[in-house]
Amino acid sequence: MDARVTVAQTTKAASQREADEPHSLVVRFGLDQPLAMDAGVSLAPLTIAYQTYGTLNADKSNAILVCHALTGDQHVASDHPITKKPGWWWIMVGPGRPIDTNRYFVISTNVVGGCMGTTGPASLNPATGRPYGLDLPLVTIRDMVNAQAMLIDHLGIETLFCVAGGSMGGMQVLQWAASFPSRVFAALPIATAAKHSSQNIAFHEVGRQAIMADPNWCQGRYLEEGVFPTKGLSVARMAAHITYMSDEALQSKFGRKLQGREAPTFSFDADFQIENYLRHQGTSFVDRFDANSYLYVTRACDYFDLAADYGGSLALAFKGTKTRFCVVSFQSDWLYTTAASRAIVHALNAGGASVSFVDIETDRGHDAFLLNEPEFIATTRGFLDAAARARGLPPAKGSSRTESPEEETL
Amino acid sequence: MDARVTVAQTTKAASQREADEPHSLVVRFGLDQPLAMDAGVSLAPLTIAYQTYGTLNADKSNAILVCHALTGDQHVASDHPITKKPGWWWIMVGPGRPIDTNRYFVISTNVVGGCMGTTGPASLNPATGRPYGLDLPLVTIRDMVNAQAMLIDHLGIETLFCVAGGSMGGMQVLQWAASFPSRVFAALPIATAAKHSSQNIAFHEVGRQAIMADPNWCQGRYLEEGVFPTKGLSVARMAAHITYMSDEALQSKFGRKLQGREAPTFSFDADFQIENYLRHQGTSFVDRFDANSYLYVTRACDYFDLAADYGGSLALAFKGTKTRFCVVSFQSDWLYTTAASRAIVHALNAGGASVSFVDIETDRGHDAFLLNEPEFIATTRGFLDAAARARGLPPAKGSSRTESPEEETL
Repeated sequence: MDARVTVAQTTKAASQREADEPHSLVVRFGLDQPLAMDAGVSLAPLTIAYQTYGTLNADKSNAILVCHALTGDQHVASDHPITKKPGWWWIMVGPGRPIDTNRYFVISTNVVGGCMGTTGPASLNPATGRPYGLDLPLVTIRDMVNAQAMLIDHLGIETLFCVAGGSMGGMQVLQWAASFPSRVFAALPIATAAKHSSQNIAFHEVGRQAIMADPNWCQGRYLEEGVFPTKGLSVARMAAHITYMSDEALQSKFGRKLQGREAPTFSFDADFQIENYLRHQGTSFVDRFDANSYLYVTRACDYFDLAADYGGSLALAFKGTKTRFCVVSFQSDWLYTTAASRAIVHALNAGGASVSFVDIETDRGHDAFLLNEPEFIATTRGFLDAAARARGLPPAKGSSRTESPEEETL
Repeated sequence: MDARVTVAQTTKAASQREADEPHSLVVRFGLDQPLAMDAGVSLAPLTIAYQTYGTLNADKSNAILVCHALTGDQHVASDHPITKKPGWWWIMVGPGRPIDTNRYFVISTNVVGGCMGTTGPASLNPATGRPYGLDLPLVTIRDMVNAQAMLIDHLGIETLFCVAGGSMGGMQVLQWAASFPSRVFAALPIATAAKHSSQNIAFHEVGRQAIMADPNWCQGRYLEEGVFPTKGLSVARMAAHITYMSDEALQSKFGRKLQGREAPTFSFDADFQIENYLRHQGTSFVDRFDANSYLYVTRACDYFDLAADYGGSLALAFKGTKTRFCVVSFQSDWLYTTAASRAIVHALNAGGASVSFVDIETDRGHDAFLLNEPEFIATTRGFLDAAARARGLPPAKGSSRTESPEEETL
């Protein structure tokens, strides 16, 4: 057997197990503690898989909730159990890092609808003994946040020191600040938007149609059929990945460079490096992510329109809030643009909130929030330091800046 | 049988017939007149399907070649034989229109690799009695242009008064001007680029992978199998279509408006108008276009890099040219940007060419070149009028501006 196929099958099997037996802490809410969902139904039982880093202090005032993006998960700063790669925000979270685990207690949950242990379409539906598939009610950003609040209650934390996250994670930050203003001391929404634009919805719809076009999708019942819509999910990921990088970054990184050849082959092979790169992004993604989960999380973003819940006024969502905000955008991000962040800032200002806004000059596009962007890292550190002083948190014990990523080569 | 299915099957069948029995003029070049292709092989026999509008004058000095874009065809100003819709540039070409058929003789060919009668992957390969499929050599923009030159020779035309086209059509314009400078009096490249960027290639690659992921693609042999990769081609079209419209235009046209409902359905239905619109773009496209042709024309664009044939200097491609150029871009076009047009203009200036450059303010994105954009229409008319005077062409007989689209409601 082809060794590559074996590895792929092993990771796919691991991915499926992760949905019900995650390598994470887990809390299970029973039938008596249902999640009331925006779809108008209750979800119970509900499992939430989460990770923590650092130590919760005695008065439980140093907790930072990190919310993950579309295909992220709770493995923020520890190795991913399937890919074995470092956590997706290792650059930001850890001892001596801006989100300093010597000082803060960091919590991250897999979102409802995800596939890494929190109840999602790949989880076993106890009512049927089969995976939920599309029987799981549609999930909204607010549902994700309400589930997180159940976990925070369970941990006995009244007020989060900070809620932080980029992209879909930033939407959760905004929803937290709007839904639970008294429980959020500081909020750090990064590279995000208060609603999905028409173009945002369009790209997500292409991805969903690519998945549903794959005959192995089986109307969402592929896990029972023992197949997987690998090709459809891969195409969806490729299309999405283009939106994560700026035109300039693609041009400077790949341009028209050929992949391991001197001249084009006059064929449909991956002649260009960018083609090879995209194909790799597609095929590696399917080993760690569930296709139905992709449908759910993209739909959650599309439905997100925070102002709509406040009579169309985003300012009303934040009216009178005591939360201190730091809004961060990246100038070359064309998925969630600087203009989208500015709209959030305007609403916060109109709502009377304390807000700082940092629009970072970079050519790395949307994915900049995952990368070593010195100004972004310094901004996060500075915002949290100031908030921590205001919150009366002591400096980190034994903290050292020598580990900070500014001084590292990535 | 579902009436919609019947219509779809009828148009699909019509589309397949169109590849070998087009509703167009046709010229067939035999084995003695092969097309020497960039792939290093010769293509013979070669059929070119084309349309003409207006009358060629006695000294054959009033011919305008209109080159079509990716999925366009030779039906510039007359009804499309499959969709029955008006030609794709009816707004620009016709009696009294800017490309005035009372004054000019307009020629348009289906490109090599297309599916409307010119030899392409859906055409019957006389050597095998089966459709070419992927046995057709890869086609480049230069191959398309060289085939057009064979037709122009056949028509006895030495010098074209103008070569005009948008998008992939504009690439052909640039290639014509570079390959045959003495045969092009005026050139009008619109909303185009002298090479495909990394992001351009990336979007095309997503489309190709979507097609190839469809099991009905059958490694390109679907016509013999009696199936069609409808879903894959539809997804490819949806992804591409996003790039044809600006973010602003999508937002003002569709925003987050729901499709025929008051509230979201909490399902994966096309709740949003933009979803419905994109799905329609996808499904209607497959009735008129061949999936393998889509692979070929996208690849031709990806391979296009005019400067590469001139030692990396675009200026050398145009050195000493006598052709007068008008380069047109649209400010909200993010597929082939203003910057890409400016690069062409810089090269033309460096090559000593006569060039005017018009960057049109519009929010309609790349597709603006197909729409009623008054400044663009006036620019085209003005450029051609001035060139016609320089060429000594008499004013149009019986021409009237009352038909000009500026005064119409689209």
